[in-house]
Amino acid sequence: MPSPNLTTFRAQFPALANKTYFNYGGQGPLSDRAFEAIVSTERHIQIDGPFNGKINAALSATCNTTRSAIADLLGVPDTTISLTEDVTVGCNIALWGLAWQAGDQIVMTDCEHPGVIAAVAEIARRFDLTVTIAPILDILNDGDPVAAIVDRLTSRTRLVIVSHLLWNTGYVLPLDEINRACHRFPTETGQTIRVLVDAAQSVGTLPLDLDAIEVDFYAFTGHKWLCGAAGVGGLYVSEAARAHLAPTFIGWRSIKMDALGNPTDWQPNGQRYEVATSAYPLYAGLREAIAVHDEWGTASERYAAICDRALRLWSGLQDLDGVECWSISPPRSGLVSFTHISGQHQTLVSHLETQGFMLRTILDPDCIRACVHYFTTDEEIDRLLTAIANFS
Amino acid sequence: MPSPNLTTFRAQFPALANKTYFNYGGQGPLSDRAFEAIVSTERHIQIDGPFNGKINAALSATCNTTRSAIADLLGVPDTTISLTEDVTVGCNIALWGLAWQAGDQIVMTDCEHPGVIAAVAEIARRFDLTVTIAPILDILNDGDPVAAIVDRLTSRTRLVIVSHLLWNTGYVLPLDEINRACHRFPTETGQTIRVLVDAAQSVGTLPLDLDAIEVDFYAFTGHKWLCGAAGVGGLYVSEAARAHLAPTFIGWRSIKMDALGNPTDWQPNGQRYEVATSAYPLYAGLREAIAVHDEWGTASERYAAICDRALRLWSGLQDLDGVECWSISPPRSGLVSFTHISGQHQTLVSHLETQGFMLRTILDPDCIRACVHYFTTDEEIDRLLTAIANFS
Repeated sequence: MPSPNLTTFRAQFPALANKTYFNYGGQGPLSDRAFEAIVSTERHIQIDGPFNGKINAALSATCNTTRSAIADLLGVPDTTISLTEDVTVGCNIALWGLAWQAGDQIVMTDCEHPGVIAAVAEIARRFDLTVTIAPILDILNDGDPVAAIVDRLTSRTRLVIVSHLLWNTGYVLPLDEINRACHRFPTETGQTIRVLVDAAQSVGTLPLDLDAIEVDFYAFTGHKWLCGAAGVGGLYVSEAARAHLAPTFIGWRSIKMDALGNPTDWQPNGQRYEVATSAYPLYAGLREAIAVHDEWGTASERYAAICDRALRLWSGLQDLDGVECWSISPPRSGLVSFTHISGQHQTLVSHLETQGFMLRTILDPDCIRACVHYFTTDEEIDRLLTAIANFS
Repeated sequence: MPSPNLTTFRAQFPALANKTYFNYGGQGPLSDRAFEAIVSTERHIQIDGPFNGKINAALSATCNTTRSAIADLLGVPDTTISLTEDVTVGCNIALWGLAWQAGDQIVMTDCEHPGVIAAVAEIARRFDLTVTIAPILDILNDGDPVAAIVDRLTSRTRLVIVSHLLWNTGYVLPLDEINRACHRFPTETGQTIRVLVDAAQSVGTLPLDLDAIEVDFYAFTGHKWLCGAAGVGGLYVSEAARAHLAPTFIGWRSIKMDALGNPTDWQPNGQRYEVATSAYPLYAGLREAIAVHDEWGTASERYAAICDRALRLWSGLQDLDGVECWSISPPRSGLVSFTHISGQHQTLVSHLETQGFMLRTILDPDCIRACVHYFTTDEEIDRLLTAIANFS
């Protein structure tokens, strides 16, 4: 049984009341407090606005406090944060904003998300780029993913794309080493090789200090491990990288204007990558969602609890007949991927869903992914293990 | 006094209860019914999800019914609609997806929105394009805006950018004629000149039948005249134009995948221009917002009422000393722009805001914009006229 404290904490999340939830990597549950922030902001917009000087100033302040809450979480200045609709939009901003030349090379791992793969393929087509895959999936248990990436860099490499925390297997890549190796690699033009990080799974999981590990572009979402509503994410662009990243999708939020409303310059900060009108109440919701986590414990404490929960799940799965975990070592994230001897992964996931257990399949590698958050209980994990053991 | 029927109808909009609202062109008020749809969809996501097979299917259905409601409004097939975050994102999709060649020309009017102007400037810089402004602002009362555009077309013109309904002055451009003239203009490569329409002010105002008037790209938002929540808009791309418009920002919603999750092709319809996770509850809200309008009357009936309301306002303003309406003829939209002899437009708007009247300034031309919707009352208009008359 969870401690009374944990019970109280979990009671803030209506989604947890009627199911056993292991899909945090898909979407996190929304707390009452975050939901109330969304509802009350929308009401406030209707009462004071919806459009006039007063409410527009208030919503601008909401944008600022949300960027600030995110910046604190990432260990970076507020000015480096752009609010986006989702992680994929953040990746696209970084991908399309570089000054591509025909023949430039992109290096990406074989564990990236289909949406990013498709965007890269289109960019390569339009600008006549080379795309090289760094295969890391098969060497994660015993090989060196940094070498797999660095060995593929050439004098024409402009961008490396990696996930900080792999969405399919839960591995944490040594981002610090990857960034340093890329930044110091000699290129033909002397341009620095930039690293775009898909941080869909790492934000809200790992304690972060992006400034300290030389991150260029870090795209994330608020609706997974941070437990915000779907529809808000963000992008960190370092000040050094910003100088080389032009805005692509552009609107009134991107620009400064003169007295006639003519565009005169980009916003001096991360706002240059924001476009136009968004669902501002969701920003307030994300800010509250982050506050809820901070009240539970520090980022390091939350990460330690996630790993502790994942270890219990991983160990239990290891003990089940016919179940094999993708990772041979204790997990360093909340994502635990495993195979079942039946090979019927979708059938097993659907079967578990009818019993109130929410998990998902992964197609490559063919496996099932179960996610635990810091507030996942022993009892939830043990019941899942029993349900999987009973599947035949 | 409004009729009891109108009073009941207006009571659905909490924003109208405590102010006199003339900013529909900035943002429309949210009805209780649309708000409840948003709240109940979010609750539904928490109860059934937030992430599993069941809720993902339900949200996919929500996307479909929302695209369908929009398509009905525009007189086009469902398959031509892409859901976007806002009108500006829709414009960017059309702007960045054409196969630009150095030396290509864009023709745009001098009445376009700053966000679009800035996006065009960046595209021109990146692809070495020519941008030609068709000046129509000063000839709207007595000149021919079609000629102003067509006279600037050249053999290298690829794209013309116009607003259907000008955000600064409320003029309705003859889109049918503009489309036909552009589509029949001979170009060097034989490629059709496409027309991108900023429809921020026209959707929810004008009765529309886009198929009948040869529209290529029509970008709009749900949060202005349609009275949806901020954060949802859309883009219509005709089937003919779709063949020439590549997706730019790309994610899992844009693509089809094989059994390993590898991207294999674009979605066959407008979904190819959608990216990734969005605020789905707002889609449900927009669908309800459209339903609320349809219950009041047909699109033609609503448009007739808007023009009737605008005529009352425009006529009343004409009668005020020191006030001059931008348009010399009766308005054909709900946007009525005027100047005040004091020249202190921001001061007047701020003064009116303290009295509960919500209007806005426009910077170019320097004026004040008051918007009426079909449910604006005589009494609201008359009180505004008195308040302006009393300003000194």
